[in-house]
Amino acid sequence: MREDRNAPRRQNVKGATNRPEETRMSDLPKTVEIIEVGPRDGLQIEPRILTTSDKVRLIDALADAGLKEIEAGSFVNPKAVPQMADTNELFDMLNRRPGVRYRALWLNPKGLERALSNGKVDIDGKLTITASETFIKRNTNRSIDETFAEMPAWIQRYRDAGIATNSIGVMAAFGCNFEGYIPEERVVGLVARAMQVMADNGCKLENLSLADTMGWGSPAQMKSLVGKIRNKWPDLHVKLHLHDTRGCAVANAVAAMEVGVSEFDSSVGGLGGCPFAGHKGAAGNICTEDLAFACGEMGVETGIDLDALVEAAKLAEDLVGHQLPGKVMKGGTLTRFKDHHA
Amino acid sequence: MREDRNAPRRQNVKGATNRPEETRMSDLPKTVEIIEVGPRDGLQIEPRILTTSDKVRLIDALADAGLKEIEAGSFVNPKAVPQMADTNELFDMLNRRPGVRYRALWLNPKGLERALSNGKVDIDGKLTITASETFIKRNTNRSIDETFAEMPAWIQRYRDAGIATNSIGVMAAFGCNFEGYIPEERVVGLVARAMQVMADNGCKLENLSLADTMGWGSPAQMKSLVGKIRNKWPDLHVKLHLHDTRGCAVANAVAAMEVGVSEFDSSVGGLGGCPFAGHKGAAGNICTEDLAFACGEMGVETGIDLDALVEAAKLAEDLVGHQLPGKVMKGGTLTRFKDHHA
Repeated sequence: MREDRNAPRRQNVKGATNRPEETRMSDLPKTVEIIEVGPRDGLQIEPRILTTSDKVRLIDALADAGLKEIEAGSFVNPKAVPQMADTNELFDMLNRRPGVRYRALWLNPKGLERALSNGKVDIDGKLTITASETFIKRNTNRSIDETFAEMPAWIQRYRDAGIATNSIGVMAAFGCNFEGYIPEERVVGLVARAMQVMADNGCKLENLSLADTMGWGSPAQMKSLVGKIRNKWPDLHVKLHLHDTRGCAVANAVAAMEVGVSEFDSSVGGLGGCPFAGHKGAAGNICTEDLAFACGEMGVETGIDLDALVEAAKLAEDLVGHQLPGKVMKGGTLTRFKDHHA
Repeated sequence: MREDRNAPRRQNVKGATNRPEETRMSDLPKTVEIIEVGPRDGLQIEPRILTTSDKVRLIDALADAGLKEIEAGSFVNPKAVPQMADTNELFDMLNRRPGVRYRALWLNPKGLERALSNGKVDIDGKLTITASETFIKRNTNRSIDETFAEMPAWIQRYRDAGIATNSIGVMAAFGCNFEGYIPEERVVGLVARAMQVMADNGCKLENLSLADTMGWGSPAQMKSLVGKIRNKWPDLHVKLHLHDTRGCAVANAVAAMEVGVSEFDSSVGGLGGCPFAGHKGAAGNICTEDLAFACGEMGVETGIDLDALVEAAKLAEDLVGHQLPGKVMKGGTLTRFKDHHA
C-alpha cells in the first residue's frame, strides 16, 4: 500500500467510514477510460526542455499507475515545438508496458511518415477538424472546406499503412476566443460531413472526440451538445478533450458522464497551459488525478491507482520545475479510507 | 464596460455567437446567491497580515462587483488568528453599500458580545455543529453532545439581542480526515436533533448550511445527501459551504444546483487554504468567480459583474502577495461575447 504523504499519518483510521454505496449516481457509466495527454499536450508548452530519459520516467510512472493509453509525443516541426524534438528517440527508449497504447500526434503527411517509420507508435486513423473558421486558419493555415478536401488523401495514407480511419476530433467544439460560442448545429453539421466523407471513401466514423480547446464549455453545454449528438447517432462513441481554462473541467466531465460519455483526455497534474488565454498561468487540460478522484468517489471505475498517479504528478512537477495546478496532489487522496484498506 | 485584460483585444467580435438559450438546464435554479467568505475564511490562513484599509478596499471591490453578503472578519482570539485582530476597526471603517450584509464569525459568547457591541455587524442567529466527533473535539474542545447542550444558552443570547435563531451549520458534513466518510444518516440525525433543540427553545430551524470543510464531497455525495434532506424537510433552505481541496468544488456546486441548492459560500480568487491537508498549497474554498462563471454560462443568475469580480480577485492576489488558484482570473471571462456586448 502506498502512503498518502499529505494525509495525517494514520494507516488504520479508527472508526473510519467507507464511501457509502448509496452515493452512486445511477446515470453514470460504470467505467471511464482516461487517456493521458500530459507528456504531449501538457509538456509542449513548458519552457524547460526535459531530457528524453526524464520523459520516459514520467511515461513509465503513468503506465504503472494504470493508464492504458498515453500520448507520448508528437512528430511535428522541432523548430516550432522544441520540447517534442526527441519524439522519435523517445519511442525507441520507452519501456512498453503490456496492454498500454503509446500514441503520438502529427499534423502533416511528413509527421505521419515519421511515426510510421518509427514502428513503435500505436497509430489511430484519426482526422481532425475545427469548429471555428478563424481558429483553423490561424492554427493550420487552411479553411474548414480545405481541411475536408484533404481528408480523402489522409484516409488513403492511413489505408496504405494498413490502418482504418474511424475517428474524428472536432477542436474548439464549444467556443473560440476569436469567434465566440460555437452553435451546436455547426458541430453536428461538421460531424455529419465527416461521416459522409468517410463513407464516400470506404470507411466509417465510429469515434468522435469533442475538444473544448479554449475552455469555453459549461456543464449545461456538455449535456446539450453531447445529448444532441447521442440522440442523432446513438452508436457513435463520444470522447471529450477538456481544458480547465475557466475552472469548469471536472464539472464538465461529470455532466458529460451523466449523458453517457465514458472516455476523456486529461493531463497529469494538470500539466500544460492555454496559449490562447493571454496569461501564462492559465490552466491547461483537465487534471488526470483530479478527474480520476472524482470518478472513484462516485463509484466509476478507471483502473487507476490514485496514490501512484499522485506520485507521477509530483514527478511531473519536479521535472518541469514549478507547481502544477492539480488539487488532489496537494489535498491528498482518500484511498486509505476505502474498503480494501479498512 | 470593463475590459477583459486576458482576452484578445477586440471589443466587437465579428461573427461572435452568443450563448445559445438551449443550453439552459431545466433543473437548475433560476438564481443563485453567493456569499463571499474570502475576507474571513480565506484571509485567516494567509501569513501576510493585511492593513485594515487594504481589507476595506477588497471588501468594497467585492460589494461593488455585486456580492450582497460578505463575511468581513471574525471576533476571535487575536493571538490565535492574528489576521482577524482588527475586525472591530474593520467594521467601523467599512464603506457600507446599500443592500449588502456584512457578516462576521465568532466562536464563543465573548466574540458575540464584541460583534454586538460593534453595532455594525449583520448578525444571524446561527448555531454550529460538526459531524465528526474527533474533529469537533480538536477544533472546539467540546463533544457533539456538549455542543448540543450549549445550544439553548446560545439561543437565549441571540434572543437577548433581539435576534431569532433559525440557522445551523454542519461542519465536515461529507467527510473528515480524522474519521473518514461521514454516514448520511448521521448528518440527517444531527439536523433533526438541532431542529428539536430549536423547537424546544421557541425557535425554528429554517436554514441549513452543509460544510464540506475538508473537501471530501463528490457530485454524487452532494446529490445523495442534499436529496435526502430535501425529501425529508422540503421547506428547509439548504446552503453549501464547499472546499476545493480535491478539485471537485465546482462540480459539486453544479450537482447541488441540480437538486435545488441555490446558495453557496465561496472565496474570491479561491483565497484561502486547507489547514487539514498537510500541504501549504492545498486549495481552500470554492472560488467565487469560477462559481459565478459556471452559473452565468448555464443561465443561472447571480447578480455578479464577472469582470469587476475578476478585478477584485486580482486585488486579492496583490494584497496577499502570491498567486491565487482561481481559473477565470487567468483564463479570462467571456462577458464580451454576451448579448449585451454584441
